[in-house]
Amino acid sequence: MRILLTNDDGIHAPGIIAVWRTLIEIGDVWMVAPERPRSAAGHAITLHKPLRITDVTVGGEIKGFACSGTPSDCVTLAFDVLLEGRCDLVVSGINAGPNLGWDLTYSGTVAAAMEGAILNLPSMAISVTLEGGSESFDFGPAARFAAVCAQRLARAKLPPHTLLNINVPAVDGSEIKGVEITHQGKREYIDRIDARTDPTGRAYYWLGGSIREVTPDPGSDVHAILANRISVTPVHLDMTAYALLDTLKEWKL
Amino acid sequence: MRILLTNDDGIHAPGIIAVWRTLIEIGDVWMVAPERPRSAAGHAITLHKPLRITDVTVGGEIKGFACSGTPSDCVTLAFDVLLEGRCDLVVSGINAGPNLGWDLTYSGTVAAAMEGAILNLPSMAISVTLEGGSESFDFGPAARFAAVCAQRLARAKLPPHTLLNINVPAVDGSEIKGVEITHQGKREYIDRIDARTDPTGRAYYWLGGSIREVTPDPGSDVHAILANRISVTPVHLDMTAYALLDTLKEWKL
Repeated sequence: MRILLTNDDGIHAPGIIAVWRTLIEIGDVWMVAPERPRSAAGHAITLHKPLRITDVTVGGEIKGFACSGTPSDCVTLAFDVLLEGRCDLVVSGINAGPNLGWDLTYSGTVAAAMEGAILNLPSMAISVTLEGGSESFDFGPAARFAAVCAQRLARAKLPPHTLLNINVPAVDGSEIKGVEITHQGKREYIDRIDARTDPTGRAYYWLGGSIREVTPDPGSDVHAILANRISVTPVHLDMTAYALLDTLKEWKL
Repeated sequence: MRILLTNDDGIHAPGIIAVWRTLIEIGDVWMVAPERPRSAAGHAITLHKPLRITDVTVGGEIKGFACSGTPSDCVTLAFDVLLEGRCDLVVSGINAGPNLGWDLTYSGTVAAAMEGAILNLPSMAISVTLEGGSESFDFGPAARFAAVCAQRLARAKLPPHTLLNINVPAVDGSEIKGVEITHQGKREYIDRIDARTDPTGRAYYWLGGSIREVTPDPGSDVHAILANRISVTPVHLDMTAYALLDTLKEWKL
C-alpha cells in the first residue's frame, strides 16, 4: 500500500513524524509536507508563484519532501510529480489542534484530505484536540488509531470524493473512551480580534479568539470529543443546502 | 441596509467596483477587500502575523478599506472593527472567473461569504465565469443581478449559517437565458502541474490545469452555466456525508 502523508503544521512537526512511525508498519509512506507551518491555510492553492520540492531528513532518519506550497499543493504535486499518479491512500496529520465543526473549511489538514478526495483517493485527516503546545504531548495513541483506520479505509470502497475527518481527544491514551461516528457540529469563536497600536501609533490587529461555551449537539464531533471519545466524521465535498432549493425557486429571480 | 462588500481579486479589481455601483443604490456599502489579489485563497485565515487596514479610494471616487489579509480576514475585521457588529448583508465579488463545483472550497470569493454565514449574516458570493482577462468585460449585468438578489436575500429569513453562491455566464447580457436554482456540480481539473527547470538546473512547478470536458449533471451549477443561465446555489457549512454514518458504524473502529 502506497501512502501519501502530509500535514499543515509543516514537515518538522512532531505529529507527522509520530504517524509516519505507525504508517510505515502498514505501507510505503511518502512524506510530502509544507516546508513551514501552514495552519489555517484552508483549501488555498498557490497559483501566483512557482512551487519547489526539497529533499529533507526529519526525525533523524525519515526521508521526506518539503514543499514550498500549501497542504493542498503538497497533495497535488506529490501525486503528479513524485508518485506519478500511483497512490492508495492520503493521510493528513497528525494536526496539533482540533479540526471540529466549522474548522473544517479553515483547516489546512482537512483541505489536504479534500484534495485527496478530489483526486478520488481514499483520504483521511487526523488531529489531536490540543489547545496548547505539542512539545511534550504523546501522539502515540492517535498515531496507532490512524494506522488502524488507514487500513480499514484503504480496503473499504467508500463512494468517490469522500474523506474521513478524525479528531482524537488530547488526553492520556488510557482515558480515551472508544470511537464515535459523528456529524460535523458547530463551534463558534468569540473575541476574534485583538486590536493593538504599533510604536508609530498605527493600529494593527491579531486574529485569534476563544471558543464560545455551548452545550454541543449529541452525535456531533464536538460532543464526542468532550466525552473523551475519538470522533470520526465522514465528509463529502458537496456543500449544497438541498433543503433550500425549493425555497429559492419560489423567489422567482 | 448596511452591506459589507469584499472579494478575492483585490480592492482595485473591476468586478468589485462594478457591483459597488449597483449596491450603493440599495444600501450603505462598506467596501473592505484584500489589498492585493488573493484568488484561490480558500477559507484561509491569517494567524501568524498581524493585519492592517488602510483607507483607499478606488474607481476615482469610492472610499474603501484595503486589508492586508485574506478575503475571510476582511469579513472578520470589517465586522468587528469597522462595522462594530452591525451588518445586514455580506456580498463577495464580483469575481472574474467561475466558482463552480469543487471550486467552492478553493475560492476566496466563496470563503468570504462563508465567513459571513459563520457570523450568521445573510451572505452571497457572485462570480462571472470569465476564463480570460477581465479588462474589457462588462460586469453590468452581473452587478444588476447582484443588487436584485441582495435585496431578496436581506429580506428572506434563510436558515442560519447558509449562503448563496451565484455564477453569471460571461456573455453579453442579452444572451443570458434566465436564472436557475442549482446544486453544486463537479468540475475536474486535468494537467494541473507544469514542470519547468530554472536557469540553475533546479526543477520548479506551476499549478494550473484545464477543465476535463464532461457532460454535466442536469440541475448543477456547471450545467446551468453551459446553457447561459445564471446559477444560484444555496450552500451550507455542514460537509457531513450523512449517507455514510451507518457504513462507518459497521466498521466497529
